Amino acid sequence: MFIKNAWYVACRPEELQDKPLGRTICGEKIVFYRGKENKVAAVEDFCPHRGVPLSLGYVEDGNLVCGYHGLVMGCEGKTVAMPAQRVYGFPCNKVYAVMEKFGFIWVWPGEKNLADETLLPVLEWADHPEWSYGGGLFHIQCDYRLMIDNLMDLTHETYVHSSSIGQKEIDESLPITKVEGDHVITERYMDNVIAPPFWQMALRGNKLADDVPVDRWQRCHFFAPSNVHIEVGVAHIGHGGYEAPKDKKVSSIVVDFITPETETSHWYFWGMARNFQPKNTVLTDQIRKGQGKIFTEDLEMLEQQQQNILNNPQRKLLMLNIDAGGVQSRKVIERLLTEERHATVKSEVAKFPNIHVV
Amino acid sequence: MFIKNAWYVACRPEELQDKPLGRTICGEKIVFYRGKENKVAAVEDFCPHRGVPLSLGYVEDGNLVCGYHGLVMGCEGKTVAMPAQRVYGFPCNKVYAVMEKFGFIWVWPGEKNLADETLLPVLEWADHPEWSYGGGLFHIQCDYRLMIDNLMDLTHETYVHSSSIGQKEIDESLPITKVEGDHVITERYMDNVIAPPFWQMALRGNKLADDVPVDRWQRCHFFAPSNVHIEVGVAHIGHGGYEAPKDKKVSSIVVDFITPETETSHWYFWGMARNFQPKNTVLTDQIRKGQGKIFTEDLEMLEQQQQNILNNPQRKLLMLNIDAGGVQSRKVIERLLTEERHATVKSEVAKFPNIHVV
Amino acid sequence: MFIKNAWYVACRPEELQDKPLGRTICGEKIVFYRGKENKVAAVEDFCPHRGVPLSLGYVEDGNLVCGYHGLVMGCEGKTVAMPAQRVYGFPCNKVYAVMEKFGFIWVWPGEKNLADETLLPVLEWADHPEWSYGGGLFHIQCDYRLMIDNLMDLTHETYVHSSSIGQKEIDESLPITKVEGDHVITERYMDNVIAPPFWQMALRGNKLADDVPVDRWQRCHFFAPSNVHIEVGVAHIGHGGYEAPKDKKVSSIVVDFITPETETSHWYFWGMARNFQPKNTVLTDQIRKGQGKIFTEDLEMLEQQQQNILNNPQRKLLMLNIDAGGVQSRKVIERLLTEERHATVKSEVAKFPNIHVV
Repeated sequence: MFIKNAWYVACRPEELQDKPLGRTICGEKIVFYRGKENKVAAVEDFCPHRGVPLSLGYVEDGNLVCGYHGLVMGCEGKTVAMPAQRVYGFPCNKVYAVMEKFGFIWVWPGEKNLADETLLPVLEWADHPEWSYGGGLFHIQCDYRLMIDNLMDLTHETYVHSSSIGQKEIDESLPITKVEGDHVITERYMDNVIAPPFWQMALRGNKLADDVPVDRWQRCHFFAPSNVHIEVGVAHIGHGGYEAPKDKKVSSIVVDFITPETETSHWYFWGMARNFQPKNTVLTDQIRKGQGKIFTEDLEMLEQQQQNILNNPQRKLLMLNIDAGGVQSRKVIERLLTEERHATVKSEVAKFPNIHVV
Repeated sequence: MFIKNAWYVACRPEELQDKPLGRTICGEKIVFYRGKENKVAAVEDFCPHRGVPLSLGYVEDGNLVCGYHGLVMGCEGKTVAMPAQRVYGFPCNKVYAVMEKFGFIWVWPGEKNLADETLLPVLEWADHPEWSYGGGLFHIQCDYRLMIDNLMDLTHETYVHSSSIGQKEIDESLPITKVEGDHVITERYMDNVIAPPFWQMALRGNKLADDVPVDRWQRCHFFAPSNVHIEVGVAHIGHGGYEAPKDKKVSSIVVDFITPETETSHWYFWGMARNFQPKNTVLTDQIRKGQGKIFTEDLEMLEQQQQNILNNPQRKLLMLNIDAGGVQSRKVIERLLTEERHATVKSEVAKFPNIHVV
Repeated sequence: MFIKNAWYVACRPEELQDKPLGRTICGEKIVFYRGKENKVAAVEDFCPHRGVPLSLGYVEDGNLVCGYHGLVMGCEGKTVAMPAQRVYGFPCNKVYAVMEKFGFIWVWPGEKNLADETLLPVLEWADHPEWSYGGGLFHIQCDYRLMIDNLMDLTHETYVHSSSIGQKEIDESLPITKVEGDHVITERYMDNVIAPPFWQMALRGNKLADDVPVDRWQRCHFFAPSNVHIEVGVAHIGHGGYEAPKDKKVSSIVVDFITPETETSHWYFWGMARNFQPKNTVLTDQIRKGQGKIFTEDLEMLEQQQQNILNNPQRKLLMLNIDAGGVQSRKVIERLLTEERHATVKSEVAKFPNIHVV
């Protein structure tokens, strides 16, 4: 079950240039393309003529042309033309609300008329001259909620990422979890530790000594429907840790957009936004490569976890203190799913004016 | 559902030399091999002893020897020998009517005693000194009827084959469809056009100018159960188009035998028969390569169409004027399937002499 | 259906060094690892915390550490520690009886408290100074009983292994099958024949002439639950065949441990134990390579047999005299399965003291 009436990252702009892009999101098979004035459109990926994916076609004059027999699909899901045909009566395709903002293309896989631009998350670092972003995309064969669990409990860094960002002190510092509406925060602070290799590289990248003790922090934020942003950083000790001045610390935001594909697969848009050396593109590449390598280490674990859970439906998983971030995030999702179901029932019932729901 | 009591192309002779060939046709897993005097036999591909495919064995003295324990299967489906065994009581394998003619091996996957050689299609160009044939085989993961649709509506050439045989004028010339019994004909004529690249090559191959306007035609013939032959060609304008004399045109027959494997896969025997330069084997190879490349362009479209249709069972496809060829061909198939079912019921009922069907 | 309360070969010691090994046996997903004092442990491959396979972790101080969040699993299926957690109430994992003996690691996938070391097969050749062993492991996609059939009817050597150990005289010498409790024996003797290539190599390996007539024998032993050991050999004629003195024959034991994985797949531990030239490791390698190549020839046959049988559930297979070894072995398995089911029911009923089974 997915929250359908919400914004999800569909793709990066560089994935959507001249050619249409077919992608399944929350179970909806959608074709994305750039219509008139380069505006992104999102339509059901099914040609009403013979059922081929429209994503095998091409874009012409801002419309999507089916690659089989030339049906021209408009951005509103209506066939606008077809050679030698009257298309007036052709059945409409479902269309989806879609936006391009903050360096991502966002889709609302539910009811288009409920799509609300103000609900889009605000990414303060995006398009900001003092910030820089680099990232990538993985296609992962597991329930998107297993990825949320993963990111809301960074204890796994000690084990899965032992050679880069893991360190024993993570285990020893219990996280604290708070819930504020649809926002879940899990924080962990490790004071007076030696920075692990990835953070040593980042310190050097910000022209700071990498061999002195540091205070390290991780502040994981879950936002509905399924985004996790993590404030991470290290500061030379004695300068206030998370609150240290910019020239004593190196910090960034791990940016994770987790877009469900099917019940057991998702699109994982990972990246890092940083506010040090923002113009240094060599450093951006270096960080992207390092992060890509680290996040690759999670893949086998998550996909095998999925298989193991499917094979053991009778087993209940534990919910320990370290799991609170994931547990609370799942509760938010559950609550929103319930609300969405109620709203759907209510709107169906509203179609029958003689029924009054008390 | 397949028409079972009909001739299908099973394989090309070059596929069936020394070794047996296992192939599933209309859901029947069959082993083909050359028995005595090189005559082709077709038997259920299942060893009555331990169930291995007989196609993993070898041919000896005109019989098929099982590669596991040496059971010798005769062409009539009876085990004729097995080392140190009396084989009299061994269960029989199903056998299939099979013929070698016109450069193909044909099989009748239904009731052997209903197989009628006179029902074999007559290929006038085969074994004819003024004609030459070249072709190939694709294994395609879609319902064979999607291939029939494809071939009975050549509008797709404009889109799928835009760099070889496609041209805008195809769209503009509506086809006309006729039904004559089990034979469906869809014709399209494009007068005074420039030949697209494939036909320019063919014009040169027949020593004709390739840069003058031509009249172009496509005459698609569907024959039950699932063969499509298409008369195609171009003639220098002013000479009668399809009726032009041989030295003013270049024409050929696109030969398509579409043999169902399962409900969602088929064997596609494609080729071209031509009556110009029949001895020119270099030209034959050149055409085969060109045609193979063109037909490869359909594969992804057809296989993704199949997946999209399976994923959207609630969606009805459109049936436009350009689809009339496929729609009528499917009607012929439906009618023959119904007739086949009735005949089966009748023959079952006939086994009970006291029941009279009014 | 598998016999669960029995010893199966789980792996070779060389597969289980520093890292844990995940393997499914009789439908049970098990992680094997070396605990304290190098003793092998076998635990359900499922972390009670978040469900990942424990086999993705590592061994530390004789315990298995989960590679995701550091849960420490003890050899008895109890979590012994986890960073910053009280583990007292964690649910237990299933544990399996496991032993290392005779150069193999054995597991009892059923009830641990029924595991009986005295039921382990006695391998007289193992750890014996006059014997040497070499072997390998195949993962095969077929019911383990098809492999038992294969090994209990060596008639197939004539067909599947015609260039190495097959010869026409195998067909001509009917085997004799006896049953002694859970032990099935099928014997075949071929007197005064020419040794096929593999045996010529073995004769030379034992410094015997390879071009004189020999007496050849095959004595297949099935032991429950699913092991087949085959005494094979050739002796120069006139010296008593199987009973010939050591300097007139070359003989060995084909050692097959067949461990079910799922209903349609198994782990096949094959090998050969010989009592000639036991210190000659070059010869051991040569035999292993030869045997590996020969046994590879069975793979396609067995896997396609499995598919063909699944596709033809209505067909009954023949049970000829040559199949008696497999047929009797399957009867032993069926009887033991029935006994196991009865024992389970009895032990369940025994939990209700007021019910008396008469």
